[in-house]
Amino acid sequence: MKEKILGVLGGVGPLATIYFADLVVKMTDAATDQEHIAMVILNHASIPDRTDYILDKSKPNPVPVMAKDAKMLEEDGCDYIVIPCNTAHFFYEEIQKNVNIPIINILEETVKRCQECVPNLKKIGVLATEGTVKSHAYQDIIEKHGLECVVPSDEDQKSLMNIIYNQVKAGKEVDIFEFHRIIGELKKQGCDAIILGCTELSIIKKDFDIQRVDIVDSMECLARASILACDKKLKEN
Amino acid sequence: MKEKILGVLGGVGPLATIYFADLVVKMTDAATDQEHIAMVILNHASIPDRTDYILDKSKPNPVPVMAKDAKMLEEDGCDYIVIPCNTAHFFYEEIQKNVNIPIINILEETVKRCQECVPNLKKIGVLATEGTVKSHAYQDIIEKHGLECVVPSDEDQKSLMNIIYNQVKAGKEVDIFEFHRIIGELKKQGCDAIILGCTELSIIKKDFDIQRVDIVDSMECLARASILACDKKLKEN
Repeated sequence: MKEKILGVLGGVGPLATIYFADLVVKMTDAATDQEHIAMVILNHASIPDRTDYILDKSKPNPVPVMAKDAKMLEEDGCDYIVIPCNTAHFFYEEIQKNVNIPIINILEETVKRCQECVPNLKKIGVLATEGTVKSHAYQDIIEKHGLECVVPSDEDQKSLMNIIYNQVKAGKEVDIFEFHRIIGELKKQGCDAIILGCTELSIIKKDFDIQRVDIVDSMECLARASILACDKKLKEN
Repeated sequence: MKEKILGVLGGVGPLATIYFADLVVKMTDAATDQEHIAMVILNHASIPDRTDYILDKSKPNPVPVMAKDAKMLEEDGCDYIVIPCNTAHFFYEEIQKNVNIPIINILEETVKRCQECVPNLKKIGVLATEGTVKSHAYQDIIEKHGLECVVPSDEDQKSLMNIIYNQVKAGKEVDIFEFHRIIGELKKQGCDAIILGCTELSIIKKDFDIQRVDIVDSMECLARASILACDKKLKEN
């Protein structure tokens, strides 16, 4: 059987891309190098900012670069593509139509995983960039599954963007109390699960070792789906 | 000016490849995603084991796969190639002759860095796989620079291989006392600098936070050289 190759359309952002690849390697049950997934990882750091363009169409459009990268991954022999950036999934259909290999959808995989992990799930809180929230990407999928979606207030969303851009992406210290306060607000509104729907937030989860079944990390869901799609074994937790 | 792209011929091994990419991102002085290096990373996990082939030519030859991967990186538009595996540099010339872009040599960069960091350098101890030691790759370069090279005794080399293969590569606990004992033996023989000349040993350095100016990590040297080659800024330490 030909070995399956995972194409990672990354660089959005660079830290998150590497963290995703690291998760894939660490979540794979492999005793030798050869039992790991083959990956082609594009860490194309100069892709224009996704949120910028979603909120203001006069800004540089990231789609042409991402479509070109997707085609390169297909030409390089990849069987699947993943994009370790929730915000970029606003362009999912546009990028998918350029290639004949499936792009594993991080949003779909994350909502599916909430349903697997949290019993009696009714209401999901979503922490994501303003671009993801404004594009209604998570809201649409969550409602399609018959569930309710809650996002932070405008003020909390602004504060979350500050954490994502001026703290995590800039390599600065994270205001963990503020991050937990925003989660607390969503829990207070009755959310049974909280999606970390931005790869920078997954990095906070790792750095502060947040281990709770109701905090569902989109990056882990994508890594999990990638390992299974490529016929590899998941490490038991 | 066209952005420079770094091609990472990886998978040798997968953990080390991701660690290298992580080092490049973390050692780059960048405040936004777009200020990071563009990378194409091949994490080709099924490349046959390098040490196996160096020690026994009846084993699968990794060169054809690596040469093909190097060509793919060139076709993907990369300006430089790096191979985050010291042992694989046994095949450096063979791989280099297949491509028209330079492969940054981890061995050369590491010996150069020893000279920059350690005053009055005369004797360098090398910790590496049996494949690297038997191929005399480090010894030749060190002697070319007019320096003396020391490698562990046969017994210590065997123990080091056990740490690399049965502990780090297998994701098992590292016997850190044994690792430090092997370094101590080289220091006792008068080594002014110790090269961590195997990417699995760089992972030990990271996990145990070993910070000494005379312990020179080949992975950090390669990351440093890559950042400078791609016209990016190094973060101050």
